Amino acid sequence: MQNPNINTYIEKNKDRFLNELFELLRIPSVSADPKYKADVIKTAVCVKEKLVAAGADKVEICETAGYPIVYGEKIIDAKLPTVLVYGHYDVQPADPIELWTSGPFEPVIKKTDLHPEGAIFARGSCDDKGQMYMHVKAFELMMQTNSLPCNVKFMIEGEEEVGSSNLATFVKQNKEKLKADVIVISDTGIIANNIPSITVGLRGLSYVEVEVTGPNRDLHSGLYGGAVANPINILCEMIAKMKDDKNHITIPGFYDDVEILTAEERAEMAKAPFSLDEYKKALDLSDIHGEDGYSTNERNSIRPTLDVNGIWGGYQGEGAKTVIASKAYAKISMRLVPHQDSEKIMKIFGDYFKSIAPKSVKVKVTPHHGGEPVVTPSTSVAYKAASMAMETTFGKKPVPVRSGGSIPIVAMFKSELGLDSVLMGFGLDSDAIHSPNEHYGVFNYFKGIETIPYFYKNFAEMSK
Amino acid sequence: MQNPNINTYIEKNKDRFLNELFELLRIPSVSADPKYKADVIKTAVCVKEKLVAAGADKVEICETAGYPIVYGEKIIDAKLPTVLVYGHYDVQPADPIELWTSGPFEPVIKKTDLHPEGAIFARGSCDDKGQMYMHVKAFELMMQTNSLPCNVKFMIEGEEEVGSSNLATFVKQNKEKLKADVIVISDTGIIANNIPSITVGLRGLSYVEVEVTGPNRDLHSGLYGGAVANPINILCEMIAKMKDDKNHITIPGFYDDVEILTAEERAEMAKAPFSLDEYKKALDLSDIHGEDGYSTNERNSIRPTLDVNGIWGGYQGEGAKTVIASKAYAKISMRLVPHQDSEKIMKIFGDYFKSIAPKSVKVKVTPHHGGEPVVTPSTSVAYKAASMAMETTFGKKPVPVRSGGSIPIVAMFKSELGLDSVLMGFGLDSDAIHSPNEHYGVFNYFKGIETIPYFYKNFAEMSK
Repeated sequence: MQNPNINTYIEKNKDRFLNELFELLRIPSVSADPKYKADVIKTAVCVKEKLVAAGADKVEICETAGYPIVYGEKIIDAKLPTVLVYGHYDVQPADPIELWTSGPFEPVIKKTDLHPEGAIFARGSCDDKGQMYMHVKAFELMMQTNSLPCNVKFMIEGEEEVGSSNLATFVKQNKEKLKADVIVISDTGIIANNIPSITVGLRGLSYVEVEVTGPNRDLHSGLYGGAVANPINILCEMIAKMKDDKNHITIPGFYDDVEILTAEERAEMAKAPFSLDEYKKALDLSDIHGEDGYSTNERNSIRPTLDVNGIWGGYQGEGAKTVIASKAYAKISMRLVPHQDSEKIMKIFGDYFKSIAPKSVKVKVTPHHGGEPVVTPSTSVAYKAASMAMETTFGKKPVPVRSGGSIPIVAMFKSELGLDSVLMGFGLDSDAIHSPNEHYGVFNYFKGIETIPYFYKNFAEMSK
Repeated sequence: MQNPNINTYIEKNKDRFLNELFELLRIPSVSADPKYKADVIKTAVCVKEKLVAAGADKVEICETAGYPIVYGEKIIDAKLPTVLVYGHYDVQPADPIELWTSGPFEPVIKKTDLHPEGAIFARGSCDDKGQMYMHVKAFELMMQTNSLPCNVKFMIEGEEEVGSSNLATFVKQNKEKLKADVIVISDTGIIANNIPSITVGLRGLSYVEVEVTGPNRDLHSGLYGGAVANPINILCEMIAKMKDDKNHITIPGFYDDVEILTAEERAEMAKAPFSLDEYKKALDLSDIHGEDGYSTNERNSIRPTLDVNGIWGGYQGEGAKTVIASKAYAKISMRLVPHQDSEKIMKIFGDYFKSIAPKSVKVKVTPHHGGEPVVTPSTSVAYKAASMAMETTFGKKPVPVRSGGSIPIVAMFKSELGLDSVLMGFGLDSDAIHSPNEHYGVFNYFKGIETIPYFYKNFAEMSK
């Protein structure tokens, strides 16, 4: 049942809700790049102030070995259930900057085909400042309308885009403080603005950087070409060897632990609304590409991957330089599915990569962050509370879906705090997160603020 | 027979000869990068002034559609033979700049293992400002000691490092002005400072840039990974496909026109002094690498190559970014041997590259410059004059060698002017041309200035 107070409050504060988010978006909190360090910290301070203003108690900036975690809470009655909100205030790098049609840190509302009422264009607008801030504003709404039905805790971190390296330590050291009944995270999406969905599965991640060294210095390709190992050619050959002609990954043991879905489960998945033509059109793809024997939706959700996320070596400037580079580099990530283990995959990747290197080069493999795949239960009270909340605000029951993305901390929350997470996000796949021109629908932002109070209400009532 | 006047004059002017070269080296005449345009032109003006000062007549800066050509001459008697000196005043880009131990455009003399009397460290010190300027100073020496035995013409261009795109037009339009009996070029090397050699063969070059496009924008590797073509992975696979497991190039027709040397010719080549252990040690190679069935010296001289000179795509910054790039790029060069044709190779490369692209990507191939392979006759008067000159100054008869490098204009001079070139260079393979820390031995610089006047004398006498 709809609660008119919610919509009235949102309507009255619409401009302020947008302006406050814009304020956050203007700070370039790129956690991957040390040159933004001061900005990342400034963003944490800003989040702290916003939580205080919304009515949270005990708001503090918790130092870690890396960027701080902002914590805040509102305990109205120790006997009531507690919702722990997780979000992150850091963002992906903005490059390639030249492809943005407006400044990545100059938020502006522009209309798009999928967002006729406008979308907020800025790095982090969807991932995750916009989605995280919906929770702060929904909390303010419940406080101001005297409708907060349970306790709430906020844990907003600043290292999600670089692997949440210090979050596990924080969680381990603060189990009492973080005690709750459920975690709610808005860092995922819905199928479409008229097809709500809730994410029930996430892929894991192993991310590595590789370096291939040939000669000890750059060489003239005329004088040496043909007679020494060219590390760029070799790196390409090694990367090519990691997949066979059916696009299966060739690392021995890579598929050993992969969950095999039944024919029934795959048939169920295939019912999700999806148009291959529209998919190809939206990305201007002449053809799709992936592992033999699986559909597009299976390839990006229930199957593991190996993607080169970056490659570089030799001369990249204008014109022609006839050089054999001394070194070539690549950043490679593997998305994992249940029940693959990110550390095991990292190890067998490294072993295999070294084993296929010719003797003429030296190889270095550096692990970056990893994370475990998860499937969250769609039978829990929390899932039902979220599903009912969305049904109330969208007028349609949401579809449970598996996402191809990774939120590695979901598995960690389960193991450290014993808590399931509800992945109730409001973004669209087309929002270009991690890409130039990231945006977040104005509709989606306010729909999130509207939906969250229903989730609290349902969860509090169903937990009785 | 040694001429004491030569050594006396060099000894007396040693410091000035070095300082004048330093002046040239301080101007960053990088022809590949438009941001150095003013510097490239400044270098042309500097070369002009030096030619005038050395005693040349009719010195002028000849405009072309690109960077100008500096021309000058000294005609002492129309009946005497004429030597045409070719050199270039432009240089390769200096990057990766962080690997230079001193500024690339701040020349300084430092001792090295192979240059115990010091070497000049600077971009262009060997390739080709240092070698070109030896000719200017040798000319000054002959003028000042009244020993110029024939006519001389200078043609010093500024686009050698970007394919000499406008030189052919200049040559075609100035056949009368450039009329000569031989061309002499110092843009190659000797085997070692105690093993003189003259280059009698050069490889040709086809240089292309390729672009592979997958989706129309960068994508989140979680949401899309596995389901769309990753242009970096695809580019790697395509590059890998260009060679088989014996390191033969797989482009259909690539070897069709390759000159096959007889067993005798190969046996003769194998006599050139060469230590594989020292080669590996100098480059810190754990193993050599190349086409099956050929020695290192054959691989880098009589066999064609395919080398990636640069590759880039996706995220190259600090840390990890989980992105599927929209585009990936590579610069690829092929060194050619007689009787391959650079345009034909460019074409079959493009055809093949496009043919092996999966339907899921779009491919663009852009040709950069090319040049034809050449073999210059070691039986000519000019070769003998150069050989005798080197024998006089080194005390040892030089070895004729085939180089793996390319000086595409040699074939063009032959076809347009009907002139053979004598490739009498004084650099060492270890001089790191096209690499960080390029240098040129002080010994080599002065040995060049000393040798050139003997070449003129021998050539004038033998041409009578």
